[in-house]
Amino acid sequence: MIIPQSDHLIQILPPKEGGSECLLYLFLNDYSEGAHPNILDALSRTNLQQERGYGTDSFAQEAEFLIKEKINKPEAKVHFVSSGTQANLISLACMLKSYESVIAAESGHIAVHEAGAIEATGHKVNVVTGVSGKVTTEAVMELLALHTDEHMVKPRVVYISQSTELGTIYSKQELQNLHEFCREKGLYLFLDGARLGHALMAKEADFNLQDIANCCDVFTIGGTKNGALLGEAIVIVNRNFQENFRYHLKQRGALLAKGRVVAIQFIELFKKNFESCLYFANAQHANFMAEKLAAGIRVCGYEFLYPLTTNQIFPIFPNKLIEIVETHYGFYVWSKIPAMPDHSAVRLVTSWATTGDAVEAFLQDLKTWKL
Amino acid sequence: MIIPQSDHLIQILPPKEGGSECLLYLFLNDYSEGAHPNILDALSRTNLQQERGYGTDSFAQEAEFLIKEKINKPEAKVHFVSSGTQANLISLACMLKSYESVIAAESGHIAVHEAGAIEATGHKVNVVTGVSGKVTTEAVMELLALHTDEHMVKPRVVYISQSTELGTIYSKQELQNLHEFCREKGLYLFLDGARLGHALMAKEADFNLQDIANCCDVFTIGGTKNGALLGEAIVIVNRNFQENFRYHLKQRGALLAKGRVVAIQFIELFKKNFESCLYFANAQHANFMAEKLAAGIRVCGYEFLYPLTTNQIFPIFPNKLIEIVETHYGFYVWSKIPAMPDHSAVRLVTSWATTGDAVEAFLQDLKTWKL
Amino acid sequence: MIIPQSDHLIQILPPKEGGSECLLYLFLNDYSEGAHPNILDALSRTNLQQERGYGTDSFAQEAEFLIKEKINKPEAKVHFVSSGTQANLISLACMLKSYESVIAAESGHIAVHEAGAIEATGHKVNVVTGVSGKVTTEAVMELLALHTDEHMVKPRVVYISQSTELGTIYSKQELQNLHEFCREKGLYLFLDGARLGHALMAKEADFNLQDIANCCDVFTIGGTKNGALLGEAIVIVNRNFQENFRYHLKQRGALLAKGRVVAIQFIELFKKNFESCLYFANAQHANFMAEKLAAGIRVCGYEFLYPLTTNQIFPIFPNKLIEIVETHYGFYVWSKIPAMPDHSAVRLVTSWATTGDAVEAFLQDLKTWKL
Amino acid sequence: MIIPQSDHLIQILPPKEGGSECLLYLFLNDYSEGAHPNILDALSRTNLQQERGYGTDSFAQEAEFLIKEKINKPEAKVHFVSSGTQANLISLACMLKSYESVIAAESGHIAVHEAGAIEATGHKVNVVTGVSGKVTTEAVMELLALHTDEHMVKPRVVYISQSTELGTIYSKQELQNLHEFCREKGLYLFLDGARLGHALMAKEADFNLQDIANCCDVFTIGGTKNGALLGEAIVIVNRNFQENFRYHLKQRGALLAKGRVVAIQFIELFKKNFESCLYFANAQHANFMAEKLAAGIRVCGYEFLYPLTTNQIFPIFPNKLIEIVETHYGFYVWSKIPAMPDHSAVRLVTSWATTGDAVEAFLQDLKTWKL
Repeated sequence: MIIPQSDHLIQILPPKEGGSECLLYLFLNDYSEGAHPNILDALSRTNLQQERGYGTDSFAQEAEFLIKEKINKPEAKVHFVSSGTQANLISLACMLKSYESVIAAESGHIAVHEAGAIEATGHKVNVVTGVSGKVTTEAVMELLALHTDEHMVKPRVVYISQSTELGTIYSKQELQNLHEFCREKGLYLFLDGARLGHALMAKEADFNLQDIANCCDVFTIGGTKNGALLGEAIVIVNRNFQENFRYHLKQRGALLAKGRVVAIQFIELFKKNFESCLYFANAQHANFMAEKLAAGIRVCGYEFLYPLTTNQIFPIFPNKLIEIVETHYGFYVWSKIPAMPDHSAVRLVTSWATTGDAVEAFLQDLKTWKL
Repeated sequence: MIIPQSDHLIQILPPKEGGSECLLYLFLNDYSEGAHPNILDALSRTNLQQERGYGTDSFAQEAEFLIKEKINKPEAKVHFVSSGTQANLISLACMLKSYESVIAAESGHIAVHEAGAIEATGHKVNVVTGVSGKVTTEAVMELLALHTDEHMVKPRVVYISQSTELGTIYSKQELQNLHEFCREKGLYLFLDGARLGHALMAKEADFNLQDIANCCDVFTIGGTKNGALLGEAIVIVNRNFQENFRYHLKQRGALLAKGRVVAIQFIELFKKNFESCLYFANAQHANFMAEKLAAGIRVCGYEFLYPLTTNQIFPIFPNKLIEIVETHYGFYVWSKIPAMPDHSAVRLVTSWATTGDAVEAFLQDLKTWKL
Repeated sequence: MIIPQSDHLIQILPPKEGGSECLLYLFLNDYSEGAHPNILDALSRTNLQQERGYGTDSFAQEAEFLIKEKINKPEAKVHFVSSGTQANLISLACMLKSYESVIAAESGHIAVHEAGAIEATGHKVNVVTGVSGKVTTEAVMELLALHTDEHMVKPRVVYISQSTELGTIYSKQELQNLHEFCREKGLYLFLDGARLGHALMAKEADFNLQDIANCCDVFTIGGTKNGALLGEAIVIVNRNFQENFRYHLKQRGALLAKGRVVAIQFIELFKKNFESCLYFANAQHANFMAEKLAAGIRVCGYEFLYPLTTNQIFPIFPNKLIEIVETHYGFYVWSKIPAMPDHSAVRLVTSWATTGDAVEAFLQDLKTWKL
Repeated sequence: MIIPQSDHLIQILPPKEGGSECLLYLFLNDYSEGAHPNILDALSRTNLQQERGYGTDSFAQEAEFLIKEKINKPEAKVHFVSSGTQANLISLACMLKSYESVIAAESGHIAVHEAGAIEATGHKVNVVTGVSGKVTTEAVMELLALHTDEHMVKPRVVYISQSTELGTIYSKQELQNLHEFCREKGLYLFLDGARLGHALMAKEADFNLQDIANCCDVFTIGGTKNGALLGEAIVIVNRNFQENFRYHLKQRGALLAKGRVVAIQFIELFKKNFESCLYFANAQHANFMAEKLAAGIRVCGYEFLYPLTTNQIFPIFPNKLIEIVETHYGFYVWSKIPAMPDHSAVRLVTSWATTGDAVEAFLQDLKTWKL
């Protein structure tokens, strides 16, 4: 682990086997670093204050209060868990009867990237074709039309993520349509907010946290990808799912003895008034870095697979360029481009911790490497 | 290791309804505070180092290496999760086929205090009567004798905790007997080490971490109750359970995006050589405080429900005394004493963070209140 | 009802290895034969009548109607499944939320003899000490007192069997007490009626089928042990559990394509008016044979482990006698008698098919072998 | 229930609400009647023979022997259960570790029509696009290429049905290709034989029962749809899945107390030598009736959605014709025909019980109604 080139350009990854190169910076994801310094400070500051365990501490109360205040729903309940998959599987296990299923886009995190976590709680994930990673009422309608009797599961929850796995966002109108549609059809709406901050801070966003709460039965607010050490808040708006939720948490191993650890972080993220609170500042920074990165890439003449909205961008590079870039920077090759067989889309992710210097360095290198 | 000064006697709990008193100190458990300061320092020190996610980071490798070194089992595998219930349910779900069960003492954590977490993975917990909270080969033998065909579950794993829920410990001989017994009977041995440090540092302990590893197929090393913010290590000694374990973790929501958060803490706990590492120092301090507390209580003339071994003590107090004590200190009333209807056993727990001042203050008050 | 003649003493079991003896008659259980001849007749009679599948046939409607008429609960719902374990696991999976548990006596079928079927649906079985195999309100009260928070499962259903696994029965008063107790405590009552007919026809029985229905939220009526080829009826009295129950059936593989097969049998069992219907006649015959058997055994000077009530009797024989008897008759050795180390209790079961000749032959032999 | 037109043309279904018409014959499925008369005879003949319970009877041994003889695999194990969904869910739960999934065509029974039965055992069903309802190695290859790490489930079993849900069959070459492919990739092959008889008796079939057994790790032989009252045989060829299989059966409620009931039927179906045994005769009859029906429909000038192979045919009728036909005959409307908006495909199913008269009557009516 050697010789940072500049303050932030830490060379951290072991060189590939047989190779000598080291990566300059990771745009792999938004959880490559630890936590925002304010959060570490808060953990230190409160460290020796004695508290009761398992989420009955005073920090949990305060964090819950802050979130309920921001969504203006005093009757909501908020719980804190350690991971997004945990938040999803516990919420859905609570919302579904044993023969009921959850509907997700084919790119939905629960449908693909949770190793069958939902199925492990006994429930099917029904997949519908998304539009830009988003579930449409039309697709759900078609699915419902096929599920007419007890030989098939009974779809009961619609799962959406905001922002989606493709970095796109649902507009306020789209959310409200889904909400109304669900109500009409006797479905519940669950929103996975692992990257909710980035969605809220998107330039195109025409909704706020209160709108989210108004449309969903249950939603989550992701800390891990937005500056916390770890932790997600589960916000239960629909009263039907509030009772005995702590049993669900305990049964799935999610009731942390030191629940304070997550609660303190959420206090830090949400303690100021709306516009200036850290949760939004972190996301805004990440989005801004993504925008800057995208602008520079566009200047170099490259196109994008999806329109830019939040902190994930998907530029299309020549495969030969990718070979060079990946010896210097960390990122994922996302997909082939059928129409351009010698090109591929890559995914670059920025975060609260991404520095302007890192973005500059990347763009500078890109210019140099331009083929 | 920084010892909190007496100004730590923070009055934190809201007064009981209608009352005005505040609690001076909590002896409720060993997770009332945050983390040992060294751990917070380590998190700060490494905070901006970029790492890959989901437990593939360099810290995870280092923490695994340190633990494997201490148990002298280079072929073992170590994974880090966020809670003890999670560690238990994932390990057991990995070790058991769908019709197999796990045997535990009737006081075993998985049998009582995990809200059916093991059953939620589809497995029965077979309960045997423990001796001082410990599983005996005789009791397991009797249980096996009853489980002879496919109308009953097939017991396959013996679950023990070290130290036990009653604060007692298995001797090296007892562990070896269980180990051999299990091998003869085709059973596996799983050890829940949520308080393994306290067991290892008990005065009566005639075993070390290597002995534990030699006797178990899988065991856990608890961080949460011994000075970490959160986190347990799952140590997989038996190679049969090593392959694809990360799938189990992911499926139960235990693969933390910032896996580093737990790994860094375990590095801090285990980085020095054996005797002097923080994991043992923390536990030793807790045990020492418990001993001091017990000695003072004994001087006051009170008996104990179980012999003192680790950081949990169970003095028997007159009920009237308990009424007074509980207005000043936090602890649990453990059980009634059938032979002494006006007395009850209480549980006092000390931790890495318990100060000598707190113990002194408690003993002083006890003398004052002596009836 | 055709009574098999003495030529029925078919020697059916293969001789033990190396031996030459064959068993004369099986008192092993009440499912050693096929079905009551009337049932086979009914299956033949209706064989080519075309019907819709999966329990939507006209026979299912008729069978449901007959049962609802007998319990005088037109609002109940009745479903037919193939086995008792299936009936139990599906009913309980329907009645319980994921963190809820079912309470059973330690001898309860679901607690011991279903290979973890209930746990496989994710639920813990909480065991209480029974009195003569029966759950008492006192025992449930004690259990509830221990289950106060989300660290433990939430007991929600009380499981009883009528008659019990020991052949005993709950009196009407006992049933009503349990019913009221459950209502007060927010619990549901589930009754496993695998041998409900034998209970109803017991001499001591002071309740009828309607009383059963009045006390239970869900109960089953066993066909397999009372003259059917196979099949159990699940009677859902509590409307909360009626909706979408067919989804539960389908999901557990219990929705038979030819649902008619079980329904036709239940029509045959219940089609006449109450007193004379085959279901009761079969059970009465079995009980009568048991009584006759017990009387003869008593005359020979042997005691019984439990008082005789239904079609299972538990005489205590000298071990040497058992060695002789078991070379001629099939039965289970039930348990040792601690106070009489050279004696054991055995279980003899009679059924709708047990002939007076078989009973006579057994008693005759017993006299001969008397030690 | 009125006026049979001829001996067999029983009018069984209640008239639609407000209407007066009755259906003449059901081509809805192959389980509209009871059992082949030989089976009822066998049940009567053996009715009073006493046997041990839960599948340990002598009939089970005989039935197992007969099947093993026909597949020439003395080392295989055979178990009998009551339904196809039960056979599928138990077999797959046995074959899969908790994080493993099963691959099926999008029309696969387990993927669509089992109400989430597989998911209820904790496993994901990965869906691939089938060709004529058949899984291709290419499609599986693509799926495997996407499942590279522990963030996704690990596909482990390929599920196929023979004949498929569309009535099509895999050729011997296709089976062998899948078999070899699975072996190369570390996958297992499971074949759902709910309609295996119809596949084996298809004119195009170039494989026999032994070929099936040679290609599969586990497969089922369906009784319910081929003349049994109920029952499916699970044939376990791969020794890895043989041990303790009865535990799986018991745990899912599939171990019938009177296991004899299914075993006796399978003896009857398989007791003669290969060509002449009832299992094949029944299927052959059903296929022949389907062929006759299809030929007549073709003569009337109608096309088919899928080529005819077994006992399910999918003619395409004008919607107006369908309206008339469905007032006289029972069948399912299968799908719309995009290119012919005023036409739809319907499904007609024949069985061992379908009479030539019924087919004739249908064809006669069809001619009359021709538009």
